[in-house]
Amino acid sequence: MLNAIALATKSSLRASPHHAKSFFSYSTRSPARNKVLSLESMNEAVKNVEYAVRGELALKAESLRVDLAQKKPLPFERVIGCNIGNPQQLYQKPITFFRQVVSLCENPDLLVPKNREVLLQLYPKDAIVRAEMLLRDVISVGAYSHSKGVPSIRRNVAKFIEKRDGVPANPEHIFLTQGASSGVQTILQVITKNQHTGIMIPIPQYPLYSATLSLFNATPVPYYLDESNQWALNMDDMEASVKEARSKGTDVRALCIINPGNPTGQCLSEENIRQVIDFCHRERIILLADEVYQTNIYQPGRKPFHSFKKILHQMGEEYKDVELVSFHSISKGMIGECGRRGGYFEMVGIDEDVVDQIYKLVSANLCPNVQGQILVDLMTNPPQKGDESYPQYQEEIGAIYESLKRRAVKLANCFNGMEGVTCNEAEGAMYVFPKITLPQKAIEAAKKAGKEPDNYYCLEMLDATGVCVVNGSGFGQAPNTWHLRSTFLPEEHLFDEFCGKLEKFHAQFLAKYKD
Amino acid sequence: MLNAIALATKSSLRASPHHAKSFFSYSTRSPARNKVLSLESMNEAVKNVEYAVRGELALKAESLRVDLAQKKPLPFERVIGCNIGNPQQLYQKPITFFRQVVSLCENPDLLVPKNREVLLQLYPKDAIVRAEMLLRDVISVGAYSHSKGVPSIRRNVAKFIEKRDGVPANPEHIFLTQGASSGVQTILQVITKNQHTGIMIPIPQYPLYSATLSLFNATPVPYYLDESNQWALNMDDMEASVKEARSKGTDVRALCIINPGNPTGQCLSEENIRQVIDFCHRERIILLADEVYQTNIYQPGRKPFHSFKKILHQMGEEYKDVELVSFHSISKGMIGECGRRGGYFEMVGIDEDVVDQIYKLVSANLCPNVQGQILVDLMTNPPQKGDESYPQYQEEIGAIYESLKRRAVKLANCFNGMEGVTCNEAEGAMYVFPKITLPQKAIEAAKKAGKEPDNYYCLEMLDATGVCVVNGSGFGQAPNTWHLRSTFLPEEHLFDEFCGKLEKFHAQFLAKYKD
Repeated sequence: MLNAIALATKSSLRASPHHAKSFFSYSTRSPARNKVLSLESMNEAVKNVEYAVRGELALKAESLRVDLAQKKPLPFERVIGCNIGNPQQLYQKPITFFRQVVSLCENPDLLVPKNREVLLQLYPKDAIVRAEMLLRDVISVGAYSHSKGVPSIRRNVAKFIEKRDGVPANPEHIFLTQGASSGVQTILQVITKNQHTGIMIPIPQYPLYSATLSLFNATPVPYYLDESNQWALNMDDMEASVKEARSKGTDVRALCIINPGNPTGQCLSEENIRQVIDFCHRERIILLADEVYQTNIYQPGRKPFHSFKKILHQMGEEYKDVELVSFHSISKGMIGECGRRGGYFEMVGIDEDVVDQIYKLVSANLCPNVQGQILVDLMTNPPQKGDESYPQYQEEIGAIYESLKRRAVKLANCFNGMEGVTCNEAEGAMYVFPKITLPQKAIEAAKKAGKEPDNYYCLEMLDATGVCVVNGSGFGQAPNTWHLRSTFLPEEHLFDEFCGKLEKFHAQFLAKYKD
Repeated sequence: MLNAIALATKSSLRASPHHAKSFFSYSTRSPARNKVLSLESMNEAVKNVEYAVRGELALKAESLRVDLAQKKPLPFERVIGCNIGNPQQLYQKPITFFRQVVSLCENPDLLVPKNREVLLQLYPKDAIVRAEMLLRDVISVGAYSHSKGVPSIRRNVAKFIEKRDGVPANPEHIFLTQGASSGVQTILQVITKNQHTGIMIPIPQYPLYSATLSLFNATPVPYYLDESNQWALNMDDMEASVKEARSKGTDVRALCIINPGNPTGQCLSEENIRQVIDFCHRERIILLADEVYQTNIYQPGRKPFHSFKKILHQMGEEYKDVELVSFHSISKGMIGECGRRGGYFEMVGIDEDVVDQIYKLVSANLCPNVQGQILVDLMTNPPQKGDESYPQYQEEIGAIYESLKRRAVKLANCFNGMEGVTCNEAEGAMYVFPKITLPQKAIEAAKKAGKEPDNYYCLEMLDATGVCVVNGSGFGQAPNTWHLRSTFLPEEHLFDEFCGKLEKFHAQFLAKYKD
């Protein structure tokens, strides 16, 4: 089973559409020497890194955008990027109060007394007060901060966590990061001792994890999510997986879990969370909880979000030595500030000497970008009831939330309505991960073209509709199944048209390759 | 000679003043199990990473700041951070036009027609036009961009390079990065095949390089700069260094060079640059040119800046296959936007398949933060003659430049005036690196305290004056010499007082430890 993990193939980035002749091309007069830095001589691990979210399909979509800009005739008017959770690229509006605060932090000249009267015509008072408070703490957004992140912001993150979970949080164990991705890589780098280090990853998973394990030459130890049970955990499979890996000499020491799931969109039940914590406690495994979609919860009654930290605390004294790192980000939720690269991780039960080593490691990169840190502050400490900007903030958050919820349902229904396609609902996050039954003729055509069948389907979809998704092999899937991941982020007023394109394409694909 | 490299000791970060008891401390009722993640089990390479710029002295300075805030009696009123090139933390003003543009990019609501009349009371028209242009390209600063960086910004960087060097630049070979540090680490990661990979680094060097080599377990191959010759290169030493390393089986494949130098502040002569290029060409070595201080040039008549790319191009056909990566940043120059994390690298003569691999690698981290990219655009494409904001821009840049130049001279003179201290002038960058002759009694006291002598001197300086510098062992120095690195960034109106503190302390130190 483990050998059958269909992760993104190495072919995904082979042909770069952006090849341009080097301006310093070899003279034809003298024989060219080999390059010092070549595919053969370079770091092998880098060659093994695959990140399908920006792989072959994304590169193809790029070149189609260029074609459209050059007015080439194509069967669609625009390329719709559903390969990546990038809400503001698809015109989701940022949160007004947040952008007001950060724009004031950018330009402190606006805050001088002589500008106040004019400023108040453009900015609410509470945004001004917040910016002044932040600037007192950071001095300037252009100055390096503390390497763990601005202390007052870490204190606010601690308060946010305490309020969410009812459990104390230590600001010295909270590190701000350039997006959650950066934090995940830092932690995995510290944990990976050598190529025998085993890190458990869910299948399907967000390929930052598999890419990072390739880069650090660690051993992935997969555990399968159960598609027939709404992508729930299968504890038997998890137990078997670690047993098998350890019997082969793999030093399994950490488990990555994504809740809500990416690409799968499930919200883990409280029972599943307890089971995982108990498993990690029994098996001496560090728990790495990717919780970046914790506010993208579409069935809060039936499937609310529970942080791993909160449940761990509730499980009491016996579990006190569990080692947990939780990750959060400003990229997702309803705020979607991906391009800003901000987030944090919180360490619980991690050895203090190791915390110091991590602090030392991140200090060599000085600090995460300060505006990203400020967005973390705003995300975790938004306008409160009674604040001037609160009604607008609530309204904006609510509108985006309701819209995401509607689109989540629409897209799952759209796929479920297609012949040979089943799609679990998205209880959370920003994606659906439908299973597509491909006709045998299509599978053969794919083989002939040297492509994985799901990749082949997605490439044909892109060519026919301009919609760019990511093939399931980019995330991992059960053997002999084919999936794709699509976001549900296209603008709501164009969503029916978007679903229509997918339906039409699927019908045409089946007709073309019917047995 | 190679064994005597006095890089920062492992003790630099041992005692963290921020140790706080874990809230999940072990129960005293049951015996504690060992942590899964401990100093013993973690990634060894991380433990070998040292970054003295934010090491023991910086941590001590932090705790003294806390003491001052708690009104503890100390012999000084404020801590002056001269350990790090962080101009805006010491109140250097950001460039007005830049901050106007980025604040508009943050808050597109400001740009709607109904706000225009009010907006024009706060912003010049050209800043508005620039922001609108940038937003057309990025859509939102909250959206992930192209993983190499926004294409139009890369085109502007290419134009900047062409204008500076008179040589064409290919935007597809320009990658925007989160500060130059991030780019340096990416390139070194790709180049490092295994522990036998040798990377030449200057001694003294900026410890990002040594830290990164430790992290990737590559072999540092040092070459000494010549203090007696204004920190010029010593080509004989360079040749001998690579010969010796290769004879021991080290696969020397790249050379890092910092121009202007950090910590040493020299601007390489054109002759030195040609010699290095020729050396790399002959010895089949990839040239990595850190040029982040290229606008901090204080003797432009005698020692102007020459980019490695320009000189390489001038050297003609024979050198066409040299592999060069040049790094630049928004953190330095006169703009000092450190906390924003922006920069780029340009690859020349690098194998196209390797370029694709690097593109694939950086795509797993999505993109550098977009506002940092926008600052790169502004830095390389600032207001031009005839633009409304040009006079103010020129005036601000000029004022900061002249002030840096004055302070560079003042601080070098200050150290040169001290007994037993010599200090090469800072031809460029932001630092001086004086050599301190320490009395034997001081060296013995240091040994007794378990400290390197230069670290001991710097700790005593911090305790007596509140001035935080970095000891020379953090950068590397010739055996049995002691140095320190100090920035000359303290505000000009306080500079004489600052120099006075250093002079007074030095005299007291000599008196205390005189033989």
